[in-house]
Amino acid sequence: MTETKEEKIYDKKISRRQMLKMTGLGAAGVAIGATGFGGVIKTFGMDFFDDDSTTTNKVNFYGQHQSGIATDVQTNIYFASLNVLVTSKQELQELFKMWTPLAVRLMNGDMIGDPTTNGMMPPKDTGEVKGLDAANLSITFGVGPSLFEKKEFGLASKKPNELKDLPHFPKDQLDAAYTGGDICIQACADDPQVAFHAVRNLVRAASGKVSLKWSQAGFNAFPVSKGKKQTPRNLFAFKDGTENPTTSNKKDMNDVVWVQSGESKGWMTGGSYLVARRIQLHLETWDRTSLKEQENTFGRHRDSGAPIGKKDEFEAMDIDRKDDNGNYVVPETSHVFLAKSVDARILRRSYSYSSGVMDATGSYDAGLLFVSFQKNPDQFIKIQNSLGRLDKMNEYITHRGSALFACFPGIQKGSYIGEALFKTL
Amino acid sequence: MTETKEEKIYDKKISRRQMLKMTGLGAAGVAIGATGFGGVIKTFGMDFFDDDSTTTNKVNFYGQHQSGIATDVQTNIYFASLNVLVTSKQELQELFKMWTPLAVRLMNGDMIGDPTTNGMMPPKDTGEVKGLDAANLSITFGVGPSLFEKKEFGLASKKPNELKDLPHFPKDQLDAAYTGGDICIQACADDPQVAFHAVRNLVRAASGKVSLKWSQAGFNAFPVSKGKKQTPRNLFAFKDGTENPTTSNKKDMNDVVWVQSGESKGWMTGGSYLVARRIQLHLETWDRTSLKEQENTFGRHRDSGAPIGKKDEFEAMDIDRKDDNGNYVVPETSHVFLAKSVDARILRRSYSYSSGVMDATGSYDAGLLFVSFQKNPDQFIKIQNSLGRLDKMNEYITHRGSALFACFPGIQKGSYIGEALFKTL
Ligand code: HEM
Ligand code: HEM
Repeated sequence: MTETKEEKIYDKKISRRQMLKMTGLGAAGVAIGATGFGGVIKTFGMDFFDDDSTTTNKVNFYGQHQSGIATDVQTNIYFASLNVLVTSKQELQELFKMWTPLAVRLMNGDMIGDPTTNGMMPPKDTGEVKGLDAANLSITFGVGPSLFEKKEFGLASKKPNELKDLPHFPKDQLDAAYTGGDICIQACADDPQVAFHAVRNLVRAASGKVSLKWSQAGFNAFPVSKGKKQTPRNLFAFKDGTENPTTSNKKDMNDVVWVQSGESKGWMTGGSYLVARRIQLHLETWDRTSLKEQENTFGRHRDSGAPIGKKDEFEAMDIDRKDDNGNYVVPETSHVFLAKSVDARILRRSYSYSSGVMDATGSYDAGLLFVSFQKNPDQFIKIQNSLGRLDKMNEYITHRGSALFACFPGIQKGSYIGEALFKTL
Repeated sequence: MTETKEEKIYDKKISRRQMLKMTGLGAAGVAIGATGFGGVIKTFGMDFFDDDSTTTNKVNFYGQHQSGIATDVQTNIYFASLNVLVTSKQELQELFKMWTPLAVRLMNGDMIGDPTTNGMMPPKDTGEVKGLDAANLSITFGVGPSLFEKKEFGLASKKPNELKDLPHFPKDQLDAAYTGGDICIQACADDPQVAFHAVRNLVRAASGKVSLKWSQAGFNAFPVSKGKKQTPRNLFAFKDGTENPTTSNKKDMNDVVWVQSGESKGWMTGGSYLVARRIQLHLETWDRTSLKEQENTFGRHRDSGAPIGKKDEFEAMDIDRKDDNGNYVVPETSHVFLAKSVDARILRRSYSYSSGVMDATGSYDAGLLFVSFQKNPDQFIKIQNSLGRLDKMNEYITHRGSALFACFPGIQKGSYIGEALFKTL
């Protein structure tokens, strides 16, 4: 796409909320002289460039790790899995290069291009977030096993051993419509339109180079107590996310989430593996189940989120506790007992979805878009194997979709997404 | 379901946010003596009953009209269309009676039943909104034409002439999976989980009496300027809702939205007709279209929302304006020109949706859950007929679902939803 000089100016400088202030002018067709910033400032005044909104609800793009992993969980996700259509390594590399500045702008809450100066062209930014701030948008890019199997990219030698389709788990009923993908873009934000807009604009900018394979929108609702966000509840009404690695704890994160040097292929150092599972919750069945049974299913109390027999959500979950008769207090078939009884940890970062009605049955197409990050997919596999056999929760859920992606390490200024993958190491 | 005395107490008094304060107690299994409020107050202290949260973000259930029509548009909708399974008028009446206090509680942000005292029973409230406030939840009930065709209800004589399936419009590609229904529940709230929870709990309480036919979740993103919500943009990036009857203007509402005495069957006086259209927006095509063409499609400027050639969103839309060459300034094939060129008005109250990917094509299953209220469906039909023939926008959209519901008038304390329909008039 050719760019006028004016467009270049806009590209760098216009936050979406600032657009609110100039809409009248834009609509009236005020032409900005191609005299660089000076001209623009003269026309609009200096405050045109101040950036109040983006400094508040903004997540940084650059850093040691990608955003959307250790980032505080937002209220909304739009998760997209893409097929790659390009056919050479160079084009693939160009794709990620092209996406880099766009992701920066999106996360800054900036317009990705001038919406007003050239009416004869499609606007560069699809525009539905104009006036909205960055809404803590995070964007996380990953690549799936299938990408490395495409001979034309010559990436076979770069494929980590652990990057392969997840094994079939008992009771899986995977639908191809929600499974796999060459590339993922996980967009999370505190506004559904901002999350959707991010994916839409990235995919659009890559028109002809990628196509949408599947996508899923989701949400989290945070109770607020004393000004602090509490653990959100999933659609089974249980607090979800209580027992997670502490994202601010470097050791926790290095132990569980971030690939350390030598632990995978070199290009993955600082990255993480993303597991996505689209899990239908059979709400109708669940809602006919007694509270006691529900609590035994998870091993926690529903209201408080505390371990069974305890009071507070954050009390230690000691699964070895027994009652006077020698029975486990936290049932051996409960979700948490089983999740904890293997030596593996993961960072869960899931969202609920309510996507209408299942075709035949009239039951809700609703559930959990389970998302977890781990330095090795085996961590997930171990836990899921433990759950798969015995988990009481299996009666109430069906895994409908599945994907695994290797998420690149963070991007440094001057570099681009996935650079290490394309460099000879 | 049998109720203990304790449950009755909870039913009436416990807001969901207050539950936050007692979760520890609940989990520890504190039993409340069946001594009425006194006992409860003694156990928990008086502040247990204060209702801070619900007084702030609360919409009233009772009134001359149902909520969710003149109510300020919220950020989220969960729209459900139901099949009726009961087979007598009395059971149908009981259904609406049963729903009435539940809807009140839901809109108050209260628990609809005690979640802690009787672990041997399924909790009355599905519980996923515990800790959340009412989030301006509105609930709107309506009945579809098909309900009146069921002989067993003996309601044929109560059917208004105008309550019939909408005609087939040119280019309609309706999917049975998103069309029709005996009853609708429109739940709107400033939180997706609160909206979903409302429908889920109403449908659950009517288990065996209704089934889900279709549902659709949607959202609106509101830019905020100087502390005031602005018109939200749809996924075509145009401000949507600019030119609408003023909901606070009684005359406007009586002229356009509320059925006046004598204008329909008596039971509809104070009610309104709801049209729902699930309209796919072909974002890929739209995004390849020039700004000028986009603006000509709507007859408004994209950034400002102003009529073409004007500066401000709220300047008068004078479609008769011509330029020096005698051509219409607002194109004759534009959406607004056509919508305005017939003598009919409606109240639009739509939400965007982004529900994944269309099966075959890989294009977005995204668009507008168009919802409008009018005192007579003919108002919608007139406008849609005008749009159907010429509207430039037709190139970019496909109507995939459609339904019409007669929404009851408001409910007075002591009465119940739809009472007038069941009373002999
Ligand atoms: C629909 C599916 C699922 C639901 C509704 C669900 C829900 C929950 C809940 C309510 C908890 C307890 C609170 C907390 O610590 O966050 C929990 C804990 C946990 N879940 Fe799940 N979960 C689901 C699927 C999975 C899957 C697929 C895995 C991994 C294979 C998993 C792994 C874990 C782990 C590791 C914990 C923490 C256990 C601990 O250390 O205490 N969950 N889950
Ligand atoms: C996907 C479908 C649609 C989209 C994206 C859309 C969008 C818009 C937009 C952007 C406006 C101008 C701003 C405003 O006044 O709110 C508008 C106006 C309007 N639309 Fe639509 N609309 C759609 C479908 C419909 C349908 C199905 C109808 C009714 C049959 C309708 C009736 C109207 C009316 C009455 C106006 C106001 C015209 C005026 O008095 O200025 N729209 N629409």
